[in-house]
Formats: sequence, structure tokens, C-alpha cells
Amino acid sequence: MTENTPVDITALMQAIGTDARDAAAVLASAPAATKARALTAAAAALRGSVPAVLDANARDLDYGREKGLTDAMMDRLVLDEDRIEAIAVGMEAVAASPDPVGEVIAEWDRPSGLHIRRVRTPLGVIGVIYESRPNVTADAGALCLKSGNAAILRGGSESFHSATVIHAALLTGLREAGLPDAAIQLVPTRDRAAVSALLGGLGGTVDVIVPRGGRGLVERVQTDARVPVFAHLEGICHLYIDAAADRDMAVKIAVNAKMRRTGICGAAECLLFDRAAPDAVGPVVAALIASGCEVRGDADVQAAAPGVVSADAEDFGREFLDTVIAAKMVDGVAGAIDHIREYGSSHTECIVTEDDGAAAEFFARVDSAILMRNTSTQFADGGEFGMGAEIGIATGKMHARGPIGAEQLTSFKYLVESKGAVRG
Amino acid sequence: MTENTPVDITALMQAIGTDARDAAAVLASAPAATKARALTAAAAALRGSVPAVLDANARDLDYGREKGLTDAMMDRLVLDEDRIEAIAVGMEAVAASPDPVGEVIAEWDRPSGLHIRRVRTPLGVIGVIYESRPNVTADAGALCLKSGNAAILRGGSESFHSATVIHAALLTGLREAGLPDAAIQLVPTRDRAAVSALLGGLGGTVDVIVPRGGRGLVERVQTDARVPVFAHLEGICHLYIDAAADRDMAVKIAVNAKMRRTGICGAAECLLFDRAAPDAVGPVVAALIASGCEVRGDADVQAAAPGVVSADAEDFGREFLDTVIAAKMVDGVAGAIDHIREYGSSHTECIVTEDDGAAAEFFARVDSAILMRNTSTQFADGGEFGMGAEIGIATGKMHARGPIGAEQLTSFKYLVESKGAVRG
Repeated sequence: MTENTPVDITALMQAIGTDARDAAAVLASAPAATKARALTAAAAALRGSVPAVLDANARDLDYGREKGLTDAMMDRLVLDEDRIEAIAVGMEAVAASPDPVGEVIAEWDRPSGLHIRRVRTPLGVIGVIYESRPNVTADAGALCLKSGNAAILRGGSESFHSATVIHAALLTGLREAGLPDAAIQLVPTRDRAAVSALLGGLGGTVDVIVPRGGRGLVERVQTDARVPVFAHLEGICHLYIDAAADRDMAVKIAVNAKMRRTGICGAAECLLFDRAAPDAVGPVVAALIASGCEVRGDADVQAAAPGVVSADAEDFGREFLDTVIAAKMVDGVAGAIDHIREYGSSHTECIVTEDDGAAAEFFARVDSAILMRNTSTQFADGGEFGMGAEIGIATGKMHARGPIGAEQLTSFKYLVESKGAVRG
Repeated sequence: MTENTPVDITALMQAIGTDARDAAAVLASAPAATKARALTAAAAALRGSVPAVLDANARDLDYGREKGLTDAMMDRLVLDEDRIEAIAVGMEAVAASPDPVGEVIAEWDRPSGLHIRRVRTPLGVIGVIYESRPNVTADAGALCLKSGNAAILRGGSESFHSATVIHAALLTGLREAGLPDAAIQLVPTRDRAAVSALLGGLGGTVDVIVPRGGRGLVERVQTDARVPVFAHLEGICHLYIDAAADRDMAVKIAVNAKMRRTGICGAAECLLFDRAAPDAVGPVVAALIASGCEVRGDADVQAAAPGVVSADAEDFGREFLDTVIAAKMVDGVAGAIDHIREYGSSHTECIVTEDDGAAAEFFARVDSAILMRNTSTQFADGGEFGMGAEIGIATGKMHARGPIGAEQLTSFKYLVESKGAVRG
């Protein structure tokens, strides 16, 4: 089938769902070595098809130029030999990571004679909806396979050809390992009706959907999905500089948290200064401005440091994803917590302080997926957490929270054994 | 307010939701000792109000008789001094159990200098919708409080007065411990519009709903809820007697799994016999019939044992909750797995076998919340698992699965510390 074949999208997607469900039943008890073999074979197949990937990517880039994609989108779309090698290395890294399925999470005995184990199981079928980055095809496919889940991948229309060739490498790996093709399916059409069908859950066959992309995509998925969604809408990360902060550390962390990469969800978007330490404001603001950042502060921050422009009300609780940061004076850690509760997005917040009590209060009372002390918010990342790859970051509290690696794509079941115990 | 006061249900429920959200913020960082003190004080208050509870219960029983409740429903509704004492003891048991909030689930270091902890946090606000058992007011309120969650309890109209008096004891406990009244709220009206409002999530304030009751209630909640639901619709528990089963053990387990209590979700509803061992059928069937059970078998089971009546197609995948069991011959463990996949409800299934390979295959390939070997399915219960109390049993794969105790009512967050680490 090519992207131009007329198809009955509903029937196509339903068949994909049914095939995924069947494949998931096989994957659930597939040995760890078999899944790892599929991934290493897929990496090898990808390395063997570099010319085909580059050719497919060139077609996508032509399409992107026609569609008038922004430079940033074109950059996300483009593949070269280095990026293809990085994708292959990523698949091998997932292959080499610990297999979560069957892991005994807890184990105990009961006076009744029961021995109880709680073991990890796959979730089932995972739908992944993403945008222009072709590498998501490999990352998401690999993580789902590692965790014993069948994947239904729906890439952006602009990366259609690149994703198709990368998916072909995954298929080669599945076949070499004797696993079903339907373990990792790529929706073979650009038709947007396929997304609607996937969000509907394909007749109960899809267990969870992970959107990977900008706010518009995530918002649509969260609104329309009829199945659970692992996602974050925004990363409005706060950096609170306590009166007991090490001043040099505060400067270093603020610049890194905001400026290392401004376009990622772990970038700091709002600085909160402790009113008890106005002297901390100047050096932080000066360093940010020197690094090319615009600082938009309230009247107190403007009074405490030169070069601060006036913040609008909408600048608080805003995800700039740019060289801009909001700044405000608050009444100590309690004031910071109140501000974050009102404006935060439950993603990542950091306190800079040498005061253990202030840090403990911040950790206890702020309810975001990731809380940090004396650490750049840019570390909010599955790789930096040691999870190998990540499929996204979730800010909900149900099931997965924070970086979503293979372990977060699992559920569990109880295995109970005894020597004929009956209940009295 | 009494149950006859005319009220704006939408406004009432929204206020309950907002108060619950505010209380949840306090509970999230309430010390374990404070929560435990509230529960022991509530138990004492309940013991001090036995006459008031009995009086309220008498009013509910009058109402139940007027409504023509069945004997079984009346039995669930009735309280006496022993049952009230058991409720108080239950609250004390939850008080004495380990506090899950703040527990470090995992902890590790990264080469970047980050120290990462994953710690348990409350979910937030939990709605509990139940039927006639007044003790659920105490059990659910206690478990939600223990896990740091605010509870919104909506009991059945038939237990309205009993629930109100038990809730008053919980309130006394909350006040003695200095916790907000809104930590455990009982919906103060019998109006069914309150249930609809709760299922709608009260403007985003309710994080999860737990229904506790019959299939009709659970089905309605699962269909109408706009927030996640922890529940099981049915417990269609299968008992597979493998050719390698110890014959005496098979008899003992079959009788206990079916007949100990036929009305609970862990009662066995279907017997699967291995075609390779027709000799196992007779003793099991004879013992069941002798214990007062009707056995409805397929032609093969009827041929293998006397006294078996003919099963209809609908008897498979059916939750009898009565002294009836379906029975079928299957082709070994693979046949049992196929049958369970088609007819099971993902609750609890058991294999009786001395063959480790057959047990391993059953454990790996059946995806129910609880799998057992050589053990009565009647052990499918939070108390028997050692969780203290349980608020229900979940068969979904998202978040909670199996018996839902205090730990299953928690989420987690990451606490990250370093000495000023910035990302390269």
C-alpha cells in the first residue's frame, strides 16, 4: 500500500488494532533475549539501509519545503549519517537495558501459607502519535517492544517516508527474532482520520496513547482520546532562589536551567526570588541578560536589578520555550509554593538553598512530577535519570509520572502459590 | 442540613469538590502520626456512639423494609454491637498499618552527581460510591485518610442514617487530630443527581472514583465517569484442574473456591478439566454436588461424571454468585488459557497442578490481576494479601490492579538533589 491508495480508514485501523492485540498476546510472554535480538537486528538492518533512509528523508524534506515548514521543524525532520547511526545506537541501548517484564516487584509470605509475588507485565497495546522527528519511530517502537507491548505508531505526515524506511528496519528485526510483524505497526497512511480512529481506541484494543510533540498535538490527544493518555501539556518549570541559596550556585543553575536549551520542556520559565534576600537578584539577572536572556520581572524584581523589563500578568504560568524568563519576588519558600501551585504545570520545579528545612518543605508540599534541589531543571529527562530512552514525560498522577521509560509502560499481576491452601 | 432540605445539588457538590481539593493539599504533607491519631480517635468516638449508630441503623432498616429490600440486602445493611466493634477495630488496624506517603520506592545515583529518589505521594481526591453496607463509610474513609487523600463518600440511600452517624465519628477523629473536616466528606443528600455530579469529576477536583457494589453500580460508574475508575465489573474466576493435579487437593480447593462463600467476587464460577485426565472429574463433581452445588457441564464433563446437568452456552463467562458452577473439558493448559482469554473477566484464575512447567505457562500467559496455583480463589482479598483493609479489587491495568489498599491509592514523585549540577 502506498500513501495514495484509497482505503477505508475505519476498517484499516480496526484491522491494525486487532492485529496489535494478537501480537501483544505473543509479546507478553516473549523471552527477554528474543526481544533484545529483534532490536539489535533492527539496528543492523537500519545501518544496512542508510542510502534508502537518506533517499526517503530527501523526499520528506521536499514535501516539508513545499508545505513551508519552519526552519526548526525542518531541522527536526532532517536525517544524516550521524543521526541515523545515533538511532541505531539508541536501539542497541534499549536492547541492552534490563527487561522489565516478569521482574518481581515485591514478594512476601502470609500466615495462611500463601506465597505472593507481584510481577511486572506489559500494558498491552500502545498508540504513539508524534510529529516530525523520524527517530521517534525507532525510539517508541523499541521501548514498546522492550516492555512487551505492541505498538501502533502514527508519525507526522511530513516524516512519512523516513518513518516508513525506519519501520522497515524494525520489521526486519522482528522477523529475524521470530516475532510477529504486528508487534510494531506504522499507520500506512497520512489520512488524518487514522488519528481520530486511534484516539477512539480501535474498539477497545488500545490500552494507552502517548502523544509526542507540541502543545497543539498533546491538547488534541488529551481532549479527544477515549483511552488513558501519558503526556504533559506544558513544562512551566519554576526555579526558586531561597534566601539561604549559595549565590554562585544560584547564578550557575539559573543560566543553565534557562539557556542550555530553551526549547525543551525542562527549561526554566519562571524565577522566584526570596523577598528576604534581595541581594541574590542582581547577579542572577545580570548573568541571564549577559547570556542573551530577556528577564521580565514584577516591580520588586525591577527595583532589585537593572535591565529587567516589566512582566505582564500573562508572563506568569507561561511556557516561553525561548530566551525569555519571568521573574517575581515571593515571601520565602511558602510564597514560592503558593505561586507554583497557582501557575505551575506539575512538570519540574527546583529550589536553590543550603537550608535543609526549606528544601524539605518544598519537597513535601509541591506536587510536581519532578522536584529538584540545587540542580538544573534541564536534567528532567529519562536519559539523565538513567532510564535509557524515554518515550515522553507525564505530568498526570495516574500510572506513569515523570519520564516514561520501558518500566513505566508496564502493569503488574499477582502470582499466588500455596500447597493447597483453602480459606477458613 | 437534613436529607429533606431542598438544595442546589450542582452547587453543593462543587463546594464539596473544592473543599476536598483544599483538604487534600493539607493531607498530602500531614504527618503519619497525625493521620493515625485521627483514626484511633474516630474508632473511640464510634465506640462511644453505639446507641446512636443502632438508632440510625433502625431508621435505615425501616426504610429498607418499606422499599422492599431483599433479605441479602437487609443483611448487608444491619448493624449490631459486634459489627460496630468490628468497624472500630478495622479503623484501628488501618491506623496501625504502615503509612505509604513519603515511602522511598527507589533511590539511585547518577554519574552527573544527581541523587534521585522516587517517593510515594497521595493521588489527591478520591470519590467512593457504594451501596448498602454502612461499614464502607469507615473502611473507605480510613484508607483514603491513611494514604493522604481527601475522600468524598456517597453511600447508598438505604444506609443514609447509619453512614451519617459513622461519618460523625470520623469527623470527631479528624478534629481531635487537627485535620480539616473536608478530609472525609459524606455527601449529605440522597439525591441521585449528586452521583452524576461526582462522576463528572466536580470541575477537575476528583482524581479517581472507586465504586463498591454490584454490577449495575459498577457498570454505570464505568460508563459515565469522566475520571479514572478503579473497579472490577465481574469476578468470573476459573479453576483449571490439570492432568498433573493432586487429586485430593483438587477436590478440596474446588469445594472451597466455589462454596465457602458463593456471593463474593473471588468465588470460582467455572471449572476447567484437562481432557488428558478424565478420572479427575468424578471426585471433584461428586464433592461439589455433595456440598450443595449444581454443576453445569458440557457433554464431555457429563460423560465423565454422574449428576452433571447440561450447560448452556451462556453458562460460560457467567458470574453465578450462587451455588452453581459451569464445567468444561479443555485440551491441557493451553486449552485452559484459550478458554480464560475468551470468557474470563481478568480477576482471578487458579491452576491446580504438580507440574511446574504447566504452572509457569499458566502464570506467564494468563493476564488476570491475580493468578493462583494450588490455592483457593477465595483468597482474592486485600486482607488475605496482607494489605490490611481494601477498598475494592481492580481488574484494569492502569495504576491499581488487584486488591486496592492504601498503597494503591498513591502516586509518586521524583526528588532530585545534587551539589549544583548543571547539564552539559
